[in-house]
Amino acid sequence: MSGSSFGELFTVTNFGESHGPAIGCVIDGCPPGLALSEADIQPDLDRRRPGTSRHVTQRNEPDAVEILSGVYEGKTTGTPICLLIRNTDQRSKDYGNIVQTFRPGHADYTYWHKYGIRDPRGGGRSSARLTAPMVGAGAVAKKWLKEHHGVTIRGCMTALGEIDIPVEDWSQVGENPFFAATTQHIQQLEDYMDALRKSGDSVGARLYVEASGLPPGWGQPLFDKLDADIAYAMMGINAVKGVEIGAGFESVRQRGTEHGDELTLEGFASNNAGGVLGGISTGQDIRVSIAIKPTSSIRTPRQSIDLAGQPATVETLGRHDPCVGIRATPIAEAMLALVLIDHALRQRAQCGDVRVDTPAIPAQR
Amino acid sequence: MSGSSFGELFTVTNFGESHGPAIGCVIDGCPPGLALSEADIQPDLDRRRPGTSRHVTQRNEPDAVEILSGVYEGKTTGTPICLLIRNTDQRSKDYGNIVQTFRPGHADYTYWHKYGIRDPRGGGRSSARLTAPMVGAGAVAKKWLKEHHGVTIRGCMTALGEIDIPVEDWSQVGENPFFAATTQHIQQLEDYMDALRKSGDSVGARLYVEASGLPPGWGQPLFDKLDADIAYAMMGINAVKGVEIGAGFESVRQRGTEHGDELTLEGFASNNAGGVLGGISTGQDIRVSIAIKPTSSIRTPRQSIDLAGQPATVETLGRHDPCVGIRATPIAEAMLALVLIDHALRQRAQCGDVRVDTPAIPAQR
Amino acid sequence: MSGSSFGELFTVTNFGESHGPAIGCVIDGCPPGLALSEADIQPDLDRRRPGTSRHVTQRNEPDAVEILSGVYEGKTTGTPICLLIRNTDQRSKDYGNIVQTFRPGHADYTYWHKYGIRDPRGGGRSSARLTAPMVGAGAVAKKWLKEHHGVTIRGCMTALGEIDIPVEDWSQVGENPFFAATTQHIQQLEDYMDALRKSGDSVGARLYVEASGLPPGWGQPLFDKLDADIAYAMMGINAVKGVEIGAGFESVRQRGTEHGDELTLEGFASNNAGGVLGGISTGQDIRVSIAIKPTSSIRTPRQSIDLAGQPATVETLGRHDPCVGIRATPIAEAMLALVLIDHALRQRAQCGDVRVDTPAIPAQR
Amino acid sequence: MSGSSFGELFTVTNFGESHGPAIGCVIDGCPPGLALSEADIQPDLDRRRPGTSRHVTQRNEPDAVEILSGVYEGKTTGTPICLLIRNTDQRSKDYGNIVQTFRPGHADYTYWHKYGIRDPRGGGRSSARLTAPMVGAGAVAKKWLKEHHGVTIRGCMTALGEIDIPVEDWSQVGENPFFAATTQHIQQLEDYMDALRKSGDSVGARLYVEASGLPPGWGQPLFDKLDADIAYAMMGINAVKGVEIGAGFESVRQRGTEHGDELTLEGFASNNAGGVLGGISTGQDIRVSIAIKPTSSIRTPRQSIDLAGQPATVETLGRHDPCVGIRATPIAEAMLALVLIDHALRQRAQCGDVRVDTPAIPAQR
Repeated sequence: MSGSSFGELFTVTNFGESHGPAIGCVIDGCPPGLALSEADIQPDLDRRRPGTSRHVTQRNEPDAVEILSGVYEGKTTGTPICLLIRNTDQRSKDYGNIVQTFRPGHADYTYWHKYGIRDPRGGGRSSARLTAPMVGAGAVAKKWLKEHHGVTIRGCMTALGEIDIPVEDWSQVGENPFFAATTQHIQQLEDYMDALRKSGDSVGARLYVEASGLPPGWGQPLFDKLDADIAYAMMGINAVKGVEIGAGFESVRQRGTEHGDELTLEGFASNNAGGVLGGISTGQDIRVSIAIKPTSSIRTPRQSIDLAGQPATVETLGRHDPCVGIRATPIAEAMLALVLIDHALRQRAQCGDVRVDTPAIPAQR
Repeated sequence: MSGSSFGELFTVTNFGESHGPAIGCVIDGCPPGLALSEADIQPDLDRRRPGTSRHVTQRNEPDAVEILSGVYEGKTTGTPICLLIRNTDQRSKDYGNIVQTFRPGHADYTYWHKYGIRDPRGGGRSSARLTAPMVGAGAVAKKWLKEHHGVTIRGCMTALGEIDIPVEDWSQVGENPFFAATTQHIQQLEDYMDALRKSGDSVGARLYVEASGLPPGWGQPLFDKLDADIAYAMMGINAVKGVEIGAGFESVRQRGTEHGDELTLEGFASNNAGGVLGGISTGQDIRVSIAIKPTSSIRTPRQSIDLAGQPATVETLGRHDPCVGIRATPIAEAMLALVLIDHALRQRAQCGDVRVDTPAIPAQR
Repeated sequence: MSGSSFGELFTVTNFGESHGPAIGCVIDGCPPGLALSEADIQPDLDRRRPGTSRHVTQRNEPDAVEILSGVYEGKTTGTPICLLIRNTDQRSKDYGNIVQTFRPGHADYTYWHKYGIRDPRGGGRSSARLTAPMVGAGAVAKKWLKEHHGVTIRGCMTALGEIDIPVEDWSQVGENPFFAATTQHIQQLEDYMDALRKSGDSVGARLYVEASGLPPGWGQPLFDKLDADIAYAMMGINAVKGVEIGAGFESVRQRGTEHGDELTLEGFASNNAGGVLGGISTGQDIRVSIAIKPTSSIRTPRQSIDLAGQPATVETLGRHDPCVGIRATPIAEAMLALVLIDHALRQRAQCGDVRVDTPAIPAQR
Repeated sequence: MSGSSFGELFTVTNFGESHGPAIGCVIDGCPPGLALSEADIQPDLDRRRPGTSRHVTQRNEPDAVEILSGVYEGKTTGTPICLLIRNTDQRSKDYGNIVQTFRPGHADYTYWHKYGIRDPRGGGRSSARLTAPMVGAGAVAKKWLKEHHGVTIRGCMTALGEIDIPVEDWSQVGENPFFAATTQHIQQLEDYMDALRKSGDSVGARLYVEASGLPPGWGQPLFDKLDADIAYAMMGINAVKGVEIGAGFESVRQRGTEHGDELTLEGFASNNAGGVLGGISTGQDIRVSIAIKPTSSIRTPRQSIDLAGQPATVETLGRHDPCVGIRATPIAEAMLALVLIDHALRQRAQCGDVRVDTPAIPAQR
């Protein structure tokens, strides 16, 4: 209700501020019996954490996760799992100059008018740092989805500003600082980012994320459609301004004969649906694209107003990502995992004993 | 949880199937004291209903709404408002031939695998007919938003297949069968649809919807962000495959200096944010674009399988919209209204007594 | 949130007022494949309906239920089931004299101060008539619980005013107007009620309801405990002022050696727990007692105030039950069924694939 | 859904196990601008903590609370408040002998059958230790209720086993180890507990808790009634087996002329309603009584079975409260506060701008 919990059956409640003592989350509804330790969670956090290349913020945070509850002798017990991440590199003085003004494109102005009070240290609760606990929870969800349903999730960057990045080789995603699924363009991307950083500006990005291995039948028919919940999850990631499922905006220009994915015994003939029809999974890959806006915290001076309602010029110092999209791939993967596990559990509740004689067809022919 | 309720505080629970006895909804949480009668609701239903032009399905449904509860002497009492719409033009025999097969691009296959049973009459619950009760509930929300906050909502079509439609003159939206905000292109659109219908095919569309007059401060900071809830609402409309807020996918190529909307005492200098920053309204117009896929029910024969798992050819007879996007504008408006009223009430709960000394700046300069 | 929906996974949304056009409910989350027709629901409604003996209100309502959705060819489809009951015997003039005053012990005063408006016709939404849709929904729940888990539910009256009624013979419950599980006392109860009615007064009652056949494992550990949800459900029935599980208030005086139910291979040695330990079912019978206050609408003049804030004398004419507890047994059974089905579905979601090697012991030895 | 969150608008999510690294909670929905520090919370935790007299468990836990988020410069910001309490005196070896058996009257058996796994250390999640975070959250709720509405809450013990304790002098509640509102009986209670402890047995208790100062209008009309939510909250406290509102079970024997509280300009003439009519507050004191069963962990050997399904004798060593009711008063107060703040916020959402001309009458004449 107040916007800090995600999911209905696998519910993640997030807490913390960028420069407070700690951030974390409580996962309620994780099924019992899943083998789990910090070692299952830390790798995804490490993929998201700052300071891993010169193209991201230099804030030095190990983002070391501690499991405070819900695990006994290495297995989940079905009770809430609290993940705690202590903040260690807060430098609140970096932000001193923005306490009295509202940064354009940032949540300063809206928090102020909503609450009448805001924590300006590092953006407080509006900081993308709060995605870290979600990445942690997503790692738990991924593990369960993999073990119980063979579902796998992966993502990559498909555009950095005006540079389109092809999806050619998934094995490369972890081999470059951009989560690019290619060996091409890497130097071009490096040069582009170096120039951007020098200019004191920022840029947007486009990401692609997909899930494979789902059975047909996950999702709800009217609201809480699988694609609606994915759109909700993705648009809720900091800086996201657009979401597409399957053919996305391309479907505007398609004909029905082109868009509708034919079914054959060997599998679906295409995947314009992006794996969802009528809000329910088809068994095809779930295909999602998101648009991420350029970072609003930039060094270039910008026009704004201050708390007293007077004109002001804002120039953001401190440590910022010149493209927040770079670190967003593990976040998008995590959010997709959280949507999927929730619907997997809902399906179990609703139709746990349904038997369908008609066999499901392969995801693709 | 099971996907038939929308909203947390202004909660709309939808029921019914396309060819069952009735469709409708229960609105729980409408504030008391709002003057309300069927006459406030019927006009929006009439904008959405079938049979209004040759470009939409010829099913003849008056969609007459009846208020069963929650109103006393012409005013809402704060208790649930049940809206009932009897189905009057069911022709279930039209669908006889699709009972045994799965239409490509349609929810037949997914419902079957989810539930092990489906109501094939007119698509059952997966029919876009189920948006009618939401349009009814949206009319109630619109009225309250207008009276209590001066918020207004409007929408139009911005592309029909490959034809882009400019937003030039909002007064024209009700004057043509396409919800086009222009006097241009109308003949071109008529001809395009006539040819499409003859070809037995269907096409997609792009819609734009906006809300004006919101105060800053509506929305939640982490999940249930105002834009996330809008994305959820829009992606949940039948056939929607993409959602953009503000600059949307254009923001991928923008620089931070271009995207971030500067604040001046005379108002915001631009609106790339689409009225939302950090998940919370800025007071600017809420700007949303959606992509709608081509209708999956088409007369052209298509390849599929049947319930016995054998190959089959599917040709959909019956009455269908060749472009479901045409009737979707009132639906998108209604869903936006439902998101906004929910957040208006949440803000009242959370920060009902907050006073902010800094005045809000105008929506635009 | 606004108090008209019950249950998390098997969710019943109730609508209507006592003297409006109709009352009803929408059940969302009923599993697919359950054989269902009005004939499964009407018998429980008939047990609760008015006019069945001289000891209850003479309002003549057939309470005929119509299923508007969610059932196809005699089976539930997994989509929302709308139950509609038209009101047919409204006599709003009976209530004319209470529009301007607040009846002692009634919700008139509280509704007025909450909403600033109220529907005074027959108590509007505060009428016990709104339990009818819950009895309908409960019948659906009972059928599913019986078929899927062998769970049965039954209830009876255990005290009418100062007359205690023993639970001796469950076969008698349907054979007398009091839901008494005995052949004793019936004449005494008849005489008692006749005298009470003549005196223009009303009286309280005590009911007992139990469920048998549950497996161990239903319920949640911290909140949403099975007993907490039962207490919530029971206290929510009109006029209920107290709830006991198992030994109830008797447990205050018990020793641990007496209260704790020992486990033996032949079954539990006693059932002070009432079938719930730590919020989770033990497999023993669920045992619940409730206290129902005397009807607040009585013919005896009482002291009150009016809308203008002036002293007033209130005398309630119209048709009322002199003991609302008499018709409450089917309501309590229905609410217990609704709690149980919800937890049955939750357990499936949370622990659907858990296998416990230790066999469950019998409910009792 | 999974039973670790309490409240709809002021939502408390609880985590932790008795002998894990930490326990705590996340409060989402606390209004912004409330002055708050650990010093506001610790006193209530100190009233509940173990080791304060010889009549309660000797586990030595300071229960020192740390605020991890949601407070900036001494004021709540409207974002989640995480309260963390580190466990410091775990002695898991004390419980070694019960890992293989199920204690009668305890949640061992039900957890095992629900989850297929359980954390046996100190009862794991079923321990009453998990009420500590709720007492912490309740302290926040109490402070807001006091400051914003002048609501005060207090509780006391009214029976210890067969000894009834009168409510004579509220000032005495903090002056004796039993939360008794009297100077009488204290020595008798001391002696009684000493004898009980020596006998290796345990006993039940009865508590009373009340809230004063509410306006009329809090609560929902059908479900989520104020009294239903209170019953849910109270029955959810460990070991509670019965709940009464106002006259409670006494109302079974009352006549309508006796039970219905008359209204006069000087105030209500009585308070059998316990401050709630039709689920909504009247403005009178909220009056609640609860029954607490005897502790199930006792030193006296008891008959049970073990994990292998064989007969076993269970004798609980370790440190336990011989009457869990003794420390339950602050818990009951906290749960009542949590219910009330939730409904205060709901009322703001639903009827935030309602004005009622009729003045409310005093709580009592």
